[in-house]
Amino acid sequence: MQLPSGLLENAVAQFAKLPGIGKKTALRLVLHLLKQNEEEVNLFSETIAKMRREIKFCQRCYNISDGDICSICANSMRNKAVICVVENIRDVIAIETTQQFNGTYHVLGGIISPLDGIGPEQLTIQPLLHRLESEPVEELIFALNPNIQGDTTIYYIQKKIQHLPCKITTIARGIAFGGELEYADEMTLARSLANRLPVQQYVKG
Amino acid sequence: MQLPSGLLENAVAQFAKLPGIGKKTALRLVLHLLKQNEEEVNLFSETIAKMRREIKFCQRCYNISDGDICSICANSMRNKAVICVVENIRDVIAIETTQQFNGTYHVLGGIISPLDGIGPEQLTIQPLLHRLESEPVEELIFALNPNIQGDTTIYYIQKKIQHLPCKITTIARGIAFGGELEYADEMTLARSLANRLPVQQYVKG
Ligand SMILES: [Zn+2]
Ligand SMILES: [Zn+2]
Repeated sequence: MQLPSGLLENAVAQFAKLPGIGKKTALRLVLHLLKQNEEEVNLFSETIAKMRREIKFCQRCYNISDGDICSICANSMRNKAVICVVENIRDVIAIETTQQFNGTYHVLGGIISPLDGIGPEQLTIQPLLHRLESEPVEELIFALNPNIQGDTTIYYIQKKIQHLPCKITTIARGIAFGGELEYADEMTLARSLANRLPVQQYVKG
Repeated sequence: MQLPSGLLENAVAQFAKLPGIGKKTALRLVLHLLKQNEEEVNLFSETIAKMRREIKFCQRCYNISDGDICSICANSMRNKAVICVVENIRDVIAIETTQQFNGTYHVLGGIISPLDGIGPEQLTIQPLLHRLESEPVEELIFALNPNIQGDTTIYYIQKKIQHLPCKITTIARGIAFGGELEYADEMTLARSLANRLPVQQYVKG
């Protein structure tokens, strides 16, 4: 593709770095922005930069947050005795969108995957164990993608906390093994959460 | 979709304004940027803003340009006696990408479309007429999308310049009537340009 302007070329290259955006789509997006007012484009640009600059991770659950503690942890209506363990922020958003869960979260930041060089120390497992020992948690729900790495992560954490009195469950396998939690429809995800199982039952198959 | 951060929500809303980007895709793009270094996101953001702020339109052909005159008009190797009339910048890019055209352009900024309230005065037709009277143009090639509005535009301009000695041609209808020029493959577009016809022949069918 021959672009008649270096400024345009640079902007297209930036968009084309985004996942799933090819050069043709990038050009289309850039030409759309070119047609907008300068103020609107500045707003676009500044909103993105501000988001990256100011967004924080909740010191309690590692969800993204506008402050030190996220809006879910800070909400007095949420049940702090129930913690739902998820891989990433997209999973928090998927579960929140069901509007069926009233507990809190713990975002691991990934799952144990030795082949990718991700061990427990790369994840927020230590802070989770610390929470479980210092907060009066009644139930820990694992809402991880149903695959080998998810199972390994559940198994690892479960071994570490078996001395604690809290109930440990996993969301029901409404989602096919190997499926992606964040792409599940709201109904499946909500039902899967409602039908959660004690993890001992799950681990034994 | 329930987002746990206002900063995130604003960024997603900005991306979701772009054509063809839904809220789910917008979230995916924003979460990708969230994983990048702050410097990289600032570069993304500043490149877009700078493009919008500094990009110009060529004073001669109305193509986008980094300076007052675009790189095509400023190129001494290009044949200034041949002007290819296109609807928009995307068409310039499509034709340039064929690497088969060595003339210059004139970007109309749209086509005559009374139903959309676009008349000749909304387009750069007056500057085109001025160019034709002041520059030694030998050939004017219409490379407009083959549809009713394109034909109307060709007819309108052709009537205005029939007293001038320059040859008036249109690209061959290699592209199906009703098709979109910018989506044509390079081969079709290049051949269509090579097989251009005198416009009188075209207008008469
Ligand atoms: Zn939190
Ligand atoms: Zn130019």
